[in-house]
Amino acid sequence: MSNRQNCDSGSLSPLELYERVTTQGDKVRSLKAAEAPKDEIDTAVKLLLSLKLMYKATTGQDYKAGSPPTDFTPINNAPAITEDDDFVDPWTVQTSSAKGVDYDKLIVRFGSSKIDKELISRIERVTGQKPHHFLRRGIFFSHRDMNQILDAYENKKPFYLYTGRGPSSEALHVGHLIPFIFTKWLQEVFDIPLVIQLTDDEKYLWKDLTVEKAYEYAIENAKDIIACGFDINKTFIFSDLDYLGMSPGFYKNIVKIQKHVTFNQVKGIFGFTDSDCIGKISFPAIQAAPSFSSTFPQIFKGKEDIQCLIPCAIDQDPYFRMTRDVAPRLGYPKPALLHSVFFPALQGAQTKMSASDPNSSIFLTDTPKQIKTKINKHAFSGGKDTIEEHRKYGGNCDVDVSYMYLTFFLEDDDKLEQLKQAYTSGALLTGELKKALIETLQPLIAAHQERRKQVTNEMQALAQALIEEDHGE
Amino acid sequence: MSNRQNCDSGSLSPLELYERVTTQGDKVRSLKAAEAPKDEIDTAVKLLLSLKLMYKATTGQDYKAGSPPTDFTPINNAPAITEDDDFVDPWTVQTSSAKGVDYDKLIVRFGSSKIDKELISRIERVTGQKPHHFLRRGIFFSHRDMNQILDAYENKKPFYLYTGRGPSSEALHVGHLIPFIFTKWLQEVFDIPLVIQLTDDEKYLWKDLTVEKAYEYAIENAKDIIACGFDINKTFIFSDLDYLGMSPGFYKNIVKIQKHVTFNQVKGIFGFTDSDCIGKISFPAIQAAPSFSSTFPQIFKGKEDIQCLIPCAIDQDPYFRMTRDVAPRLGYPKPALLHSVFFPALQGAQTKMSASDPNSSIFLTDTPKQIKTKINKHAFSGGKDTIEEHRKYGGNCDVDVSYMYLTFFLEDDDKLEQLKQAYTSGALLTGELKKALIETLQPLIAAHQERRKQVTNEMQALAQALIEEDHGE
Repeated sequence: MSNRQNCDSGSLSPLELYERVTTQGDKVRSLKAAEAPKDEIDTAVKLLLSLKLMYKATTGQDYKAGSPPTDFTPINNAPAITEDDDFVDPWTVQTSSAKGVDYDKLIVRFGSSKIDKELISRIERVTGQKPHHFLRRGIFFSHRDMNQILDAYENKKPFYLYTGRGPSSEALHVGHLIPFIFTKWLQEVFDIPLVIQLTDDEKYLWKDLTVEKAYEYAIENAKDIIACGFDINKTFIFSDLDYLGMSPGFYKNIVKIQKHVTFNQVKGIFGFTDSDCIGKISFPAIQAAPSFSSTFPQIFKGKEDIQCLIPCAIDQDPYFRMTRDVAPRLGYPKPALLHSVFFPALQGAQTKMSASDPNSSIFLTDTPKQIKTKINKHAFSGGKDTIEEHRKYGGNCDVDVSYMYLTFFLEDDDKLEQLKQAYTSGALLTGELKKALIETLQPLIAAHQERRKQVTNEMQALAQALIEEDHGE
Repeated sequence: MSNRQNCDSGSLSPLELYERVTTQGDKVRSLKAAEAPKDEIDTAVKLLLSLKLMYKATTGQDYKAGSPPTDFTPINNAPAITEDDDFVDPWTVQTSSAKGVDYDKLIVRFGSSKIDKELISRIERVTGQKPHHFLRRGIFFSHRDMNQILDAYENKKPFYLYTGRGPSSEALHVGHLIPFIFTKWLQEVFDIPLVIQLTDDEKYLWKDLTVEKAYEYAIENAKDIIACGFDINKTFIFSDLDYLGMSPGFYKNIVKIQKHVTFNQVKGIFGFTDSDCIGKISFPAIQAAPSFSSTFPQIFKGKEDIQCLIPCAIDQDPYFRMTRDVAPRLGYPKPALLHSVFFPALQGAQTKMSASDPNSSIFLTDTPKQIKTKINKHAFSGGKDTIEEHRKYGGNCDVDVSYMYLTFFLEDDDKLEQLKQAYTSGALLTGELKKALIETLQPLIAAHQERRKQVTNEMQALAQALIEEDHGE
């Protein structure tokens, strides 16, 4: 569908469409009751009819007031392929464009909302804090119901943060830090609880890993996550393999979600097939459950209505679209979301960084020398072929990976703008831009390694103390 | 397929077929090495070739030594429909015959083994106990690997019992007691640990129940189960909704099983469709997991190789056929099984008793008067229409439900035989046979109710003591 309006509604879930029809019906009624101008009523009625048609096309059923759709195959919830062949699902991100995925189109396709200037201003106004550069620079570019969260904050109603990681390898790369850096900022600004899920069960199911290895990766990754410096009194990090066996609330929510999602639905949303194992098929419920506060009775004291805000990369959105569909049927609030762009591979923005290709990524374990070599050798350049041409025509920041990385990690807006102008004009050479990135990343990663070492030592000391306590008993 | 040999192999899983081909190949090799007579070798080779053909027909792949089948659609594992239209799966039992399901055909179809005289004698020899009347009378009629269990017992190797119940209502009917009565006897005879799973999660997924209601039924059912009188020091009863959230081993085994079973497989085994919720689709792993001793680290101290013996009604076999397929791939022993016939409804043996139809069942909560009225009013009779005809032609014990019930509950073999002969000859009238059943069931149920009351009181006292202890702290 090329028409934006259609495309937008087409990407809505049946339940969301149902809600739009209901809202529009209410609007028509109140316009009529208020004896509004005829053309205004006509326009509203036309939209109502077209929404009803769309509802029927999506669900195969007529809209009936008071009867929300229950079982359906989401038709346009499938892995998002935009017209330019961008492909985005939780396991694959592919685009043919060197500029990366077309995020505006993804917003339309996923039915989320753009984080616009107005929302950023409201965040600044409500929190009294300068918005994080990830917001200012469009790195977190899309959201769902962020205004509800700001309403809650203004009304002093509680809410909490939820983010996570699939521990598929021992070492994280710098791209993995994006959601954690931003979540840390959100926790500081709003001063709220945070839960972090390590989906070691997911990695066991998807990868050629043992349960033990996946759990080991979860523990190693947890050290890097803790090193990001969250509020130790308000942060709960858990491995699924661990926490599922020690929580009175987690499994109950999982089974509730699993009752309300059919195979047809996960097939539509995630592209599962009949040859997939039943673990993969039921896993989405496990990633969904931490969106509900009753999954953590030890934190929220049994309260079931505390709304959740999920900062994550946009490829995780399918999980939470599913979650938002299910939430009202369980009597839980829908989680709100903040979506980030993907972190590009060194070789270019066509794909996400991958932990399995060491040269596509800068790892948090890399030495200053490795960082320098990788950037100099592999970072895709937007510069021209010769110095002469570069001086004459300038470089292209839209495709230059070093510049992209600087937008993530160089906090100083003025310095970033200077680099951009100098590179675009041709005054700055590719080597010099790379140098700026190297000098930004080296101290950041060194500091991270230092904090990680501290975390490891503290964990060892704690484990030792627990062992001694055990022996003392 | 009308040929028994084919039919038998056709009901084997790909993995079992694979193992048969391997064994037969070994046999051919050893016959050749031993220079056995030509016709003996020829026969063995022919069987090998036909097994290989069957393997290819089932899996679509050629047999390759050392490469067991991994992903496949079980072709003949589907719900068992025999030629006489008996239908048996974990949720439905239907037959057009008043004598009930044809169990000999079911054994062939499921690929299990008949509990024959030889096995019963071995049980008697090995245990030094008179076999339970459920064994003597063919109520437990089919098994898998029971000889392995007897070998283990003779060799003083540990094994354990596992049975369960889906708590779909508050009150149990007498048919529900069958596996528990027999399991209690097995526990006494072998003196081994027993785990009892209450699948409240399953009932939540399948029925129109809340999580809370399903759990409440689990607690109520547990009282009836405890009242059966298991060894309190060797029996662990758990609700899934409870135990999954407090066991370090249960979820790990569930996710391991879920990785090794595809949707194609559960579709073949259980008849699931794309419209089924993902909870149902992944549930079989939850019923499978207690077959592995590592699900209970608190009982088996982390030992993973303790074999399990599962007494259950034959409709539960699909779960454990799946479990036995998966076990070797996880490095666990396959569970052994003992299968019982179904307990007939009062109205006749065409269906199982149902807890949802109060008149199809005698409940453990029924008063002596209710028992009497239900049997007199509803128990399907094998007698003739008039007293004269009955005296002349005699009654038919094969379809008479009162007689069937007596085979379950009247322990005295001589008395049962007398009743059978008198009824068949016409000397005993239907009313008199019903009276014999009423007089057997009334004291049994009254005694059960008395024990249940004791259990309830003890549980309340325990709960009270725990509350007081809490307050004292």
